[in-house]
Amino acid sequence: MVIVIQCADKVGLVATIAWLLQQQELNIVSMREHVDTVQNRFFARIEINKNVDAVTLEQQLKKILPPDAEVIVNPNPLKKIVVLVTKEYHCLSDLLIRNHFNTLGASVMSVIGNHPNLQDICRRFDMPFRLISHEGKTKEEFEQELQLEIDKYSADYIVLAKFMRILSPTFVEKYPLRLINIHHSFLPAFIGANPYKQAYERGVKLIGATAHFVTNQLDEGPIIAQQIISVNHSFTTADMVKAGKEIETAVLAKALQMVIDDKVLVHQNKTVVFE
Amino acid sequence: MVIVIQCADKVGLVATIAWLLQQQELNIVSMREHVDTVQNRFFARIEINKNVDAVTLEQQLKKILPPDAEVIVNPNPLKKIVVLVTKEYHCLSDLLIRNHFNTLGASVMSVIGNHPNLQDICRRFDMPFRLISHEGKTKEEFEQELQLEIDKYSADYIVLAKFMRILSPTFVEKYPLRLINIHHSFLPAFIGANPYKQAYERGVKLIGATAHFVTNQLDEGPIIAQQIISVNHSFTTADMVKAGKEIETAVLAKALQMVIDDKVLVHQNKTVVFE
Amino acid sequence: MVIVIQCADKVGLVATIAWLLQQQELNIVSMREHVDTVQNRFFARIEINKNVDAVTLEQQLKKILPPDAEVIVNPNPLKKIVVLVTKEYHCLSDLLIRNHFNTLGASVMSVIGNHPNLQDICRRFDMPFRLISHEGKTKEEFEQELQLEIDKYSADYIVLAKFMRILSPTFVEKYPLRLINIHHSFLPAFIGANPYKQAYERGVKLIGATAHFVTNQLDEGPIIAQQIISVNHSFTTADMVKAGKEIETAVLAKALQMVIDDKVLVHQNKTVVFE
Amino acid sequence: MVIVIQCADKVGLVATIAWLLQQQELNIVSMREHVDTVQNRFFARIEINKNVDAVTLEQQLKKILPPDAEVIVNPNPLKKIVVLVTKEYHCLSDLLIRNHFNTLGASVMSVIGNHPNLQDICRRFDMPFRLISHEGKTKEEFEQELQLEIDKYSADYIVLAKFMRILSPTFVEKYPLRLINIHHSFLPAFIGANPYKQAYERGVKLIGATAHFVTNQLDEGPIIAQQIISVNHSFTTADMVKAGKEIETAVLAKALQMVIDDKVLVHQNKTVVFE
Repeated sequence: MVIVIQCADKVGLVATIAWLLQQQELNIVSMREHVDTVQNRFFARIEINKNVDAVTLEQQLKKILPPDAEVIVNPNPLKKIVVLVTKEYHCLSDLLIRNHFNTLGASVMSVIGNHPNLQDICRRFDMPFRLISHEGKTKEEFEQELQLEIDKYSADYIVLAKFMRILSPTFVEKYPLRLINIHHSFLPAFIGANPYKQAYERGVKLIGATAHFVTNQLDEGPIIAQQIISVNHSFTTADMVKAGKEIETAVLAKALQMVIDDKVLVHQNKTVVFE
Repeated sequence: MVIVIQCADKVGLVATIAWLLQQQELNIVSMREHVDTVQNRFFARIEINKNVDAVTLEQQLKKILPPDAEVIVNPNPLKKIVVLVTKEYHCLSDLLIRNHFNTLGASVMSVIGNHPNLQDICRRFDMPFRLISHEGKTKEEFEQELQLEIDKYSADYIVLAKFMRILSPTFVEKYPLRLINIHHSFLPAFIGANPYKQAYERGVKLIGATAHFVTNQLDEGPIIAQQIISVNHSFTTADMVKAGKEIETAVLAKALQMVIDDKVLVHQNKTVVFE
Repeated sequence: MVIVIQCADKVGLVATIAWLLQQQELNIVSMREHVDTVQNRFFARIEINKNVDAVTLEQQLKKILPPDAEVIVNPNPLKKIVVLVTKEYHCLSDLLIRNHFNTLGASVMSVIGNHPNLQDICRRFDMPFRLISHEGKTKEEFEQELQLEIDKYSADYIVLAKFMRILSPTFVEKYPLRLINIHHSFLPAFIGANPYKQAYERGVKLIGATAHFVTNQLDEGPIIAQQIISVNHSFTTADMVKAGKEIETAVLAKALQMVIDDKVLVHQNKTVVFE
Repeated sequence: MVIVIQCADKVGLVATIAWLLQQQELNIVSMREHVDTVQNRFFARIEINKNVDAVTLEQQLKKILPPDAEVIVNPNPLKKIVVLVTKEYHCLSDLLIRNHFNTLGASVMSVIGNHPNLQDICRRFDMPFRLISHEGKTKEEFEQELQLEIDKYSADYIVLAKFMRILSPTFVEKYPLRLINIHHSFLPAFIGANPYKQAYERGVKLIGATAHFVTNQLDEGPIIAQQIISVNHSFTTADMVKAGKEIETAVLAKALQMVIDDKVLVHQNKTVVFE
């Protein structure tokens, strides 16, 4: 069972938390604590050896911690995920395979596409696919349809697995720290359109991908994970796109794994990842 | 200030430790705790925000912890290192540079060589170099001379920076978890002599290096760090040796950094590295 | 179009080959040549800008090259692959996805399993799955059934995607340099059974996987690709197995890509990989 | 002996070159050829098994190749390098060590600093250090002094090993493709001042370094090599600077090695690196 806590830092927080757990004969199997001394912010992730009632323990912790404390005790046995896609198959397929073989550590409830391309692969996994085209609709209408579908599943996280529409601030604000995007570049390099074309023209020797929470600064949300892959002069733009897909798939899977395992805490525009 | 603790695990250890620190108004800036549930062993590394008297705090912690607890409170302001070498310059040079510019986080007190080859590079850094040849001596005599020289400096760690003599069990037992070796292969592959020749003949695509504590099982002590480097068909054995030197230098530097920062705990034949 | 050549080395081989291509107005878009000076062996891979008749060009090249030359001109437009599996899904699923979306650069014709576990995932991709159990059969009988099924498809390569039966020398000899295996360790470390258990007990900091051609030396065929992934003290054996699956999937995909692209030449027990 | 050639592409270039070498009984031990089909540009690097007269062979090759061909036959037995520094020791120290032990494959002739900080480390290696302060001088005067000192040694390459002055277009144009810089970021991310502070504030999970030729577009010359290193939330800006130094040292050493080995060809703003 996992406990995640963040609040303004002060002396004695670990003692307070550890005392409560000891009272209940709970053993701390693994603990990571970090204080951001610049922001004076306390972050902790604690694994305990037994499963107790999450709601009760959360309330008990909140009672003895400062009022600003954010406490999460292992909220969902299996977190629920809705995936948004456009046309590219690589990230979605990887998630579907992991979901199918129960190694994702979460449950993909539904896939929403603004194009029909990935309907077939979902069908093969008996995964609900909902086509919500953006065409002929205002952004507001389009996003209302998205929201209706997402909320149907009480999704914990909405994964943008190569979803190529920019979401409005209004929509993003509805899902704070619940929208996870995979960006096809090593942010902050090559922000914007056609990053692989930019990378090709610049003659870089590494390309990367970045998984991040979506906020209302475009391509600027808190970074969860980044990875790179080597390229060289023999790569065309198309080869870079292909190599990029491998790394996008890997980095999204890794980021999602860490989020699902409650290893990612966010404060302002940065993450603390207790990897 | 850093506190490192290990002992048999039981409920309440974190609470006990954190309570003592809180009593003294000490803030935990960073904490890593890990329980090896197979061995039922508790490991913790705690950084606190103030420097207090280390001996006193160590005694206080020992008093409230189980009798088997090993407690280290930041033992030395600047750890002392003696380096043993033979002929190869790469690892030693790297340590000398870091030592010279005060970025090692420790102090190299002396270099001992069983060949004179590296005397000159030491002289250039005003580093004492003591030539202790093994020739014409029994292993016992040779090691007694080594010991005398090492003990002159009360060295915390003895770094075998490509020291090519096998040390006797008697010698090794005198410096438990204080002898750090860099092994020119990705252990446990290619144990023994000429690992790069073995690697060449096997046609591997990666070669590696391993930094480990020396125990009386040859090439079998607790592993601190490992890294690899890519090779290919165009590498001759000599090219592999050259590439290997790069990775040996890097992995020894990294392992030493972590040991110096009190991030490496050892139990039986394995390390816990709070990287 | 790709030309791959190997033979004993002598002066003038490049000139001979290049002259023939020039005569036919064929432009060399990319060329890799390597001489193993220890073995006195010439290896070359040449990409030309046009597709001509492969059989004719192969014959013309053989005529002007030494009699021992092995010449391959892009033998199959789309290479055919048969996959052998047991129970683990990760490598097979990755191949099925790539095959389904036509990014494998080859065509998976059929999957053979000695257990029924992966029948369902094959069915979902309309991929023929043939269950050939080894139970109640001699090795000879079992392998005869395998061979019959494999040969039905004139497979260029047989991929052992976590196929957990050891194949007999007789069987292996029937498919020289056509059997590709993914081995769950960083060979030559942890040869044999339970490599992750061995790795856990040894406390290594990296685990790896090796893709290699199968020959009649167990776990000893020519290595095509190797990759590693970091692990640490917090990994149980099960966690290492899980991390190992990620790297096994990646390294098999990469090795297969290079074999399919005619970038892997083999001589004796080593590969030349023109990556 | 190494031959490097680039020119506009056309059919038959490899045949022409290989024919000339065959006439002289020269064996091609290793060959890399690449055609940039977008730019219609031919690049080749050829290693031959004997040392012949470089000037003669270069002339013979130029005679039979198109008039625009750039041909280099292994110009210098040991290339000459001048290093420019400011205050940071890490890249310079690494070069001095390699130079001292004759593993650089080139010869460092002199070090020029615009601050005196690194005079001492040069003295320890009997390396000439020339202090040329920029203070109280116009950029023109400062650069004239630099040029006089550089030209004294007929340097093949001028390495900016953390040289913190921006050079004028006039100066840069005097040394086309001979100025090699190490940039403290993973270009094109974090161009400009304080890249590690920028990286810290952005909360990135990887930081990188880039070695590139200097041209008159600031931080925009042809990239030779890039590498990255992982960082996390526990890194302060100072920690990132420290980690950055490790990667800067490594990537400059690697880039320089490849340039010295004549493996780097440049056309317009991109490199072809026959690694």
